[in-house]
Amino acid sequence: MLLHLSTWPEVEDYLTRSRGIILPIGSTEQHGPTGLIGTDAICAEAVAHGVGEATDALVGPTINVGMALHHLAFPGSISLRPSTLIALIQDYVKPLARNGFERFYFINGHGGNVASMKAAFSETYAAIADANLPNASNIRCKLANWYQGEAVGSLAQQLYGDQEGSHATPSEVALTQYLYPEAIKRANLTPSVAPKGRSIYNPADFRQFYTDGRMGSNPDLATPEHGQQFYDLSVKEMVNGYLSFLQEE
Amino acid sequence: MLLHLSTWPEVEDYLTRSRGIILPIGSTEQHGPTGLIGTDAICAEAVAHGVGEATDALVGPTINVGMALHHLAFPGSISLRPSTLIALIQDYVKPLARNGFERFYFINGHGGNVASMKAAFSETYAAIADANLPNASNIRCKLANWYQGEAVGSLAQQLYGDQEGSHATPSEVALTQYLYPEAIKRANLTPSVAPKGRSIYNPADFRQFYTDGRMGSNPDLATPEHGQQFYDLSVKEMVNGYLSFLQEE
Amino acid sequence: MLLHLSTWPEVEDYLTRSRGIILPIGSTEQHGPTGLIGTDAICAEAVAHGVGEATDALVGPTINVGMALHHLAFPGSISLRPSTLIALIQDYVKPLARNGFERFYFINGHGGNVASMKAAFSETYAAIADANLPNASNIRCKLANWYQGEAVGSLAQQLYGDQEGSHATPSEVALTQYLYPEAIKRANLTPSVAPKGRSIYNPADFRQFYTDGRMGSNPDLATPEHGQQFYDLSVKEMVNGYLSFLQEE
Amino acid sequence: MLLHLSTWPEVEDYLTRSRGIILPIGSTEQHGPTGLIGTDAICAEAVAHGVGEATDALVGPTINVGMALHHLAFPGSISLRPSTLIALIQDYVKPLARNGFERFYFINGHGGNVASMKAAFSETYAAIADANLPNASNIRCKLANWYQGEAVGSLAQQLYGDQEGSHATPSEVALTQYLYPEAIKRANLTPSVAPKGRSIYNPADFRQFYTDGRMGSNPDLATPEHGQQFYDLSVKEMVNGYLSFLQEE
Amino acid sequence: MLLHLSTWPEVEDYLTRSRGIILPIGSTEQHGPTGLIGTDAICAEAVAHGVGEATDALVGPTINVGMALHHLAFPGSISLRPSTLIALIQDYVKPLARNGFERFYFINGHGGNVASMKAAFSETYAAIADANLPNASNIRCKLANWYQGEAVGSLAQQLYGDQEGSHATPSEVALTQYLYPEAIKRANLTPSVAPKGRSIYNPADFRQFYTDGRMGSNPDLATPEHGQQFYDLSVKEMVNGYLSFLQEE
Amino acid sequence: MLLHLSTWPEVEDYLTRSRGIILPIGSTEQHGPTGLIGTDAICAEAVAHGVGEATDALVGPTINVGMALHHLAFPGSISLRPSTLIALIQDYVKPLARNGFERFYFINGHGGNVASMKAAFSETYAAIADANLPNASNIRCKLANWYQGEAVGSLAQQLYGDQEGSHATPSEVALTQYLYPEAIKRANLTPSVAPKGRSIYNPADFRQFYTDGRMGSNPDLATPEHGQQFYDLSVKEMVNGYLSFLQEE
Repeated sequence: MLLHLSTWPEVEDYLTRSRGIILPIGSTEQHGPTGLIGTDAICAEAVAHGVGEATDALVGPTINVGMALHHLAFPGSISLRPSTLIALIQDYVKPLARNGFERFYFINGHGGNVASMKAAFSETYAAIADANLPNASNIRCKLANWYQGEAVGSLAQQLYGDQEGSHATPSEVALTQYLYPEAIKRANLTPSVAPKGRSIYNPADFRQFYTDGRMGSNPDLATPEHGQQFYDLSVKEMVNGYLSFLQEE
Repeated sequence: MLLHLSTWPEVEDYLTRSRGIILPIGSTEQHGPTGLIGTDAICAEAVAHGVGEATDALVGPTINVGMALHHLAFPGSISLRPSTLIALIQDYVKPLARNGFERFYFINGHGGNVASMKAAFSETYAAIADANLPNASNIRCKLANWYQGEAVGSLAQQLYGDQEGSHATPSEVALTQYLYPEAIKRANLTPSVAPKGRSIYNPADFRQFYTDGRMGSNPDLATPEHGQQFYDLSVKEMVNGYLSFLQEE
Repeated sequence: MLLHLSTWPEVEDYLTRSRGIILPIGSTEQHGPTGLIGTDAICAEAVAHGVGEATDALVGPTINVGMALHHLAFPGSISLRPSTLIALIQDYVKPLARNGFERFYFINGHGGNVASMKAAFSETYAAIADANLPNASNIRCKLANWYQGEAVGSLAQQLYGDQEGSHATPSEVALTQYLYPEAIKRANLTPSVAPKGRSIYNPADFRQFYTDGRMGSNPDLATPEHGQQFYDLSVKEMVNGYLSFLQEE
Repeated sequence: MLLHLSTWPEVEDYLTRSRGIILPIGSTEQHGPTGLIGTDAICAEAVAHGVGEATDALVGPTINVGMALHHLAFPGSISLRPSTLIALIQDYVKPLARNGFERFYFINGHGGNVASMKAAFSETYAAIADANLPNASNIRCKLANWYQGEAVGSLAQQLYGDQEGSHATPSEVALTQYLYPEAIKRANLTPSVAPKGRSIYNPADFRQFYTDGRMGSNPDLATPEHGQQFYDLSVKEMVNGYLSFLQEE
Repeated sequence: MLLHLSTWPEVEDYLTRSRGIILPIGSTEQHGPTGLIGTDAICAEAVAHGVGEATDALVGPTINVGMALHHLAFPGSISLRPSTLIALIQDYVKPLARNGFERFYFINGHGGNVASMKAAFSETYAAIADANLPNASNIRCKLANWYQGEAVGSLAQQLYGDQEGSHATPSEVALTQYLYPEAIKRANLTPSVAPKGRSIYNPADFRQFYTDGRMGSNPDLATPEHGQQFYDLSVKEMVNGYLSFLQEE
Repeated sequence: MLLHLSTWPEVEDYLTRSRGIILPIGSTEQHGPTGLIGTDAICAEAVAHGVGEATDALVGPTINVGMALHHLAFPGSISLRPSTLIALIQDYVKPLARNGFERFYFINGHGGNVASMKAAFSETYAAIADANLPNASNIRCKLANWYQGEAVGSLAQQLYGDQEGSHATPSEVALTQYLYPEAIKRANLTPSVAPKGRSIYNPADFRQFYTDGRMGSNPDLATPEHGQQFYDLSVKEMVNGYLSFLQEE
């Protein structure tokens, strides 16, 4: 059930049977010479919609731009500052909590969001306490990375081994290829496996070391068929994660 | 050309031929008993994509949640505070401006965004000046409401007259029906034409007067066929608007 | 009844008979070669005082500096950033609301304030709800532009036609001439009617197109006698507006 | 020379002969049963205008609302939060500094502003440095309290001794009586000299101890004639202060 | 009783017998050629610990970095912006107030903190009121400067006369010499008594006038023995101050 | 070399031989019935000082209060909101970067800080870029958790196995016992090994599950001798980490 395709009376009705909502969060950032700039949003959204369908859960609108400040030296990348993202998450969660939602399950497509989202959850709980929401102590937010379930990780390891890398990975590229076969890009990747190991500092520094944007990955290994496998596995794992989250005491 | 389906080298290449980018902004808010909560985002995104296709312009990710604080008494509505939206727009525009973009054309689906977006543009120019971007004086942002072109307005007037109203209007509902025929909702609208004329104050007050969320409208008049007409007219008008914007001296 | 010339027991007494307060908001910005930098504040204050007298309403202190970022390339202009103005309006409204005020009628002298003020009202309602003020759902803010009443508009049209323009207009200049005859300025206006039609972007761009600061206007047409007419008409219209606002259910 | 009664070319011209500007800052807060709520703004503005006239200096618009959070339990009081005032002062100073102003002389009417204004000056210098204004290292702000010159203090001591107190003082009341003889208020002050010595904490606490709003003062001693003396002395002292400020190396 | 060396059950127990807490606040800023950069934090912390011991009061962690923006042109200096310090103080006071603390006694080592701390207290009271803490009207914060007690001032006057100055003073240097005899620094101070009298503006201006960082002082006069005297006197005065603060009605 | 025990000329001299600085960051939060509230600050500070001594590096003042919002239901806990911590880190790093520091090595004692610190680093790089610092692209911040080196982890595993847990761990308690043997606390821990596995949500929820504050740990196993071993191992590992950081190309 997609929030964007629902009416408010439908949401009111939904609240009589569930307090949970799924919110996809991605990023808009370079993913190397062949990865789509929307990769993280596309993947998070697709998996979230799959989970919503499988669990009859409400799925909110995708947060298309996340925290990707370190990618900004590559054209087309956009990023919220962490403090903006913190404000935004409060703005999403607080009114929904006032209306009765209590379990916020964010399905995430971007490692760079994790820290800011954790910070945002903490600050949101504090804001909700300050506003004296009656259900303040029942509000819970969780971040679930679609790419970090056990089965997804095993498959990536089996298919790509070390060439999975950590940014512009073949697994996420595969998933976008499955979802958007018409947007499969090719380029001469040199070296085929990108360098790795350098810590992330400022955008200029990032681009100087990771010259084409990839981190340790060889996205040439990706295929749409892999993408479908990743999709199926991730939806399954996220379904379990969401249901556990709802059932937590 | 969708930013989310592009790679950074493609964006780099795009920048050699254009300095413009289109950014859809909608809202996630109640649209009466039969209007979709995502109406404003859906409409803005569809029109923006149409404009992008017609002009070979780059279209960025949709801002799905806008300024809809007055709708928050209806479940499922989400809103940024204006100050959050102002911060967000800076975060979108500043890095793109650093990479060479200079014309930001926001295609908007929600009247409630207009004031905060104008405020955001002003504050963004100031932030860009403070950061001494070399192209600071060339950065221009424009907001174009898909529903306010002359032809779109005439059609709405011709089809619905006074029953167009100002929120959960048949024209926007029609457009979503055209785009999502599988999500056409029906309900008993009482009265068929919603009340109007009350100023907008706080959310509780809003809901007390506009009890089912509509403002002066009768969305029952909408049809998917109308929606297609609105789509075609709006894309045409927004294409002209975007091209004029680029050509402005 | 001017707040600045009242004591707190007088305000306490006033609150037993009214919940309304009038707050003038202007701007401090260039108004062309002959318009006063304080035009918008002067006009809003004078009209507000007139309305207060006619209705026995309390009139608060004038907000002398508004949102005029686009005028900052002209010396002497000052502006709050929209986010500062939003914070300021919360700071004005919240304590007065705690003390019992519920109807905030802002008489405005500057078009550039409108967007930020609307944003500020929305954010203020949200802040008041978060602070759980007992009368939160009764708080209402309204912005009334002294220059946009029907009669005022008709008079301007009749006196100046197209030469009214939209900034440094003869009507507002006339009003300041009526109020401050000792400060009537003359200069060689070239061309006599300023250019118009350019959208407003950043300050540098604004000044490049609107080289002397005027927008489409010919303030040479202004006379103090016109000013008195505008004053009388505007006070009358704002009186009606304020009384309607109080009587709104 | 009042900024509000000047045009931008006049300011441009002024900048060829001076880099200084005077900005009055007051407060909108209770001043006991007989003191005007606008006392601090009225006094600061009058003295500032006097200084401007005597020195041919430009005088900007009065900041009518200052930092008076501790007075908010009395109806009619308004206050900026310190963080808002800090933002506001940046917004005033930064654009004027860009236009060439370098000496900002704030004539202050309210002790409660002092701390926040000092904080604001510090933060403003930092913001100006971050924005790399070319004249950043020449920008100087000073706060001058009209009531704290040596001669003013001596006169208050001579006229009122201990009954001057520290809030709603006879000296400031006298000055408003001189300026607004039509707004002289009378009430039964019990006790005639208000209590003193309690530190200032939150508004509720303030009102519990200082039950009628006065702090250690007996404003019944004030006369308009005293007011004129205070005015003359303060203008003289502030003139000297302003001129010294300009001449500081 | 040091908070950092206590457990939460010990704090819970403490709250049954006292509502007070002492919080040292210093600064990290240049103190001339021979003064320690940590002088203000070191002194405030030592005195606070002494007061805590003498009164069995809980002493919280030292705020090591304060408001020292004007010192930033000297390497090694760090400063919070006033707005950051205001946020920080809220973050310290609000949760402690929720847990039952009501008297916050800040022992301060740096004159530059005073204004921002006063601003912070005001804003904190407002935030606590907005959050509707049940004990909101009982929360009180006080700032006590260790160096400004009467006895401390007399001793400084007697030992150093005019050579005490106002920054990098022999009295504070003496106190650090007493506390850290292993870190006594020597340098050729030229002139032996530093210049004075210049107002504080931006950091560049500060360093240009106060070339070695001292203000009017001759820290060469300091001895560890003096430091012990200052320590004893200040602890005694602060003990009295703290006890009075607790006993205030 | 401790910044607090240095003079500014010493820092100036240090900058001729190194661009690095070490900054300890801890927390002020409950650590179960026997753990010290200052545990994280105490440990981080001690290790940082050890590293500074071993490498002749400058060590800045300890950030005593970190991000511990989830602990606030236990008395004595204090926390910055993430947005405050983000502002604070900018305030620390920016002026030091202006003075020539380029490598900021934060030695951290609290897992709860990690997310907010990562967010803070990203936002700091952006702020430094906006302020156009000449060395902006060379500024690097790193967070190193004293408790997460390989050798430290192995020792904890060997000594405590599963009873190490994740909060109020025997390893951190041991380190504080070594550093403050006079502050070793005893209490009846029931159960001896605290529960674990529950995600962290809001403070009320946290305390309801983790009733005495510990998470999965048995701090009774700690001894001062263990503490010394942890200290030695951690200093050694952090020394290597710091030197590698400096040598990174």
